[in-house]
Amino acid sequence: MKTSSELSGPAFDLKGFFNERHALIDGALDRLLPGESVDPVSVHTAIRWSVFAGGKRFRPILLLTTGEAFGAHPEKLLATACALEMIHTYSLIHDDLPSMDDDELRRGRPTCHIRFNEATAILAGDALQTLAFQTIAEESSLSTEKRVLLVSELCRAAGTPLGMVAGQAHDLEAESRAVTTGELEQIHRLKTAALIIAAARCGAIIAGATDPELEAVSRYAAQLGLLFQITDDLLDITATVEALGKTPGKDARAQKATYPSLYGIEAAHQRADLVHQEACAVLEQIDTPTERLRAIADYILKRDA
Amino acid sequence: MKTSSELSGPAFDLKGFFNERHALIDGALDRLLPGESVDPVSVHTAIRWSVFAGGKRFRPILLLTTGEAFGAHPEKLLATACALEMIHTYSLIHDDLPSMDDDELRRGRPTCHIRFNEATAILAGDALQTLAFQTIAEESSLSTEKRVLLVSELCRAAGTPLGMVAGQAHDLEAESRAVTTGELEQIHRLKTAALIIAAARCGAIIAGATDPELEAVSRYAAQLGLLFQITDDLLDITATVEALGKTPGKDARAQKATYPSLYGIEAAHQRADLVHQEACAVLEQIDTPTERLRAIADYILKRDA
Repeated sequence: MKTSSELSGPAFDLKGFFNERHALIDGALDRLLPGESVDPVSVHTAIRWSVFAGGKRFRPILLLTTGEAFGAHPEKLLATACALEMIHTYSLIHDDLPSMDDDELRRGRPTCHIRFNEATAILAGDALQTLAFQTIAEESSLSTEKRVLLVSELCRAAGTPLGMVAGQAHDLEAESRAVTTGELEQIHRLKTAALIIAAARCGAIIAGATDPELEAVSRYAAQLGLLFQITDDLLDITATVEALGKTPGKDARAQKATYPSLYGIEAAHQRADLVHQEACAVLEQIDTPTERLRAIADYILKRDA
Repeated sequence: MKTSSELSGPAFDLKGFFNERHALIDGALDRLLPGESVDPVSVHTAIRWSVFAGGKRFRPILLLTTGEAFGAHPEKLLATACALEMIHTYSLIHDDLPSMDDDELRRGRPTCHIRFNEATAILAGDALQTLAFQTIAEESSLSTEKRVLLVSELCRAAGTPLGMVAGQAHDLEAESRAVTTGELEQIHRLKTAALIIAAARCGAIIAGATDPELEAVSRYAAQLGLLFQITDDLLDITATVEALGKTPGKDARAQKATYPSLYGIEAAHQRADLVHQEACAVLEQIDTPTERLRAIADYILKRDA
């Protein structure tokens, strides 16, 4: 276990830490996903196309980092971290479909239904969701009590009425009309923050965190989720197509409600700063080394892609 | 517990038994699914439109019947039976989509994407799949050991490479070319039989059946799944639109490989008889009252809708 001083300050190499965890997660995903030569080849090729499309692995890294902060070994966290990334990837595949957000480019590459076809993309998303729950249910390094808690946690964060699918439904419904800032935050709480909160909570659950610790972790991750969305909206305005891997300015052209469109760019930056401070304030209350969790919040605030 | 003589013979009212179990399942589904007035209203209304569309509840009834045959109380079986029906319904919603089988009518009513829209249908299917696993994970009347076994069983039957989604992928791929009878049986084994086998196995698992019993149950249900598909194909040729609730003759117009198209109608009927006999022969080897399981096989052989 590294000491606090080894992790904080300019000496802590966040990028190196991210890269190492990224490689660990990608290796585990590669082992868990069916190979491209396994029938049905179309679906498995499409799954791997989307899972290995250059995602930043933000959610599984958050799960690992939170779990490690509370003392869990990465090996016990990896399967659930991968399950979370499978849920996230399934949601991207389905959200990109023509009847949903109709996106042709993601992370600089054609989206799943463009590269393959719509039916294959729907099935790849469906199969990824299933595989996520199978991965947790069959993770023998965890007690069955933990496994059912994790499946329940992930289901509530991914489904309806209080999870990701509910957020996507609200988002589609809001496209046709003006939304208030309150509605916008509710959409993002469901669509983006729910899974980010689940990532942090699942890590803490595996590590055996107490209920008050879980509560604090949830509040930290809720701020992190909000921060993630505000910076995402800002990047859509300010980033280049190369950095973003997709066409920027899409929100504005779609007249979509975003933090910059509702608050203005400057106020959106100020809101990001405030939310970042609140996330860090919650970490102060947790009696375990949280330098890496703080570094993640710093990273999200300053990210350029 | 009723004795064997009370259950068998002309005195056993299969239709009454089905109706009673159907009502039990519908009541449980109604309790488990979010109400239509719960946000997001669109998705929850679409979910209930498809779940309560007049389905026969064949899979959950099979789960209840198998579990009861091995001594489980219906109350312990109901949640998993509902989860299975949620998985089945999600697959129907997604299979009916324009990019998949492109069906506008099911059970005499507009399909989900016709009644609502494509995005809502995709999200309703996604949310139903999630809710299925949540339902099992949170079923407190079952031990956590049983719950993870059931989630794993259902995931393997629903996903890839050996479950329902794999079958749908093979089926779509086979539409564009001639298939052999071996390929046709493999498609149906995955697309239809996998979930029917899981239904019987989940019931037996909840009841605490032994491994040899589970093995026998799987063989019975595999024959039942095959029988179900053969009679389904035959009904597409012989049934009326009123009885079927969808347009018959669709397979032939789509030049889809079916048992009648590959074997001829008469030989398909003979194959159904043979498969029914094999299912009943497996039941002879099970040392528990199996009259109702036999009655289900009889019903599938003779069904007219």
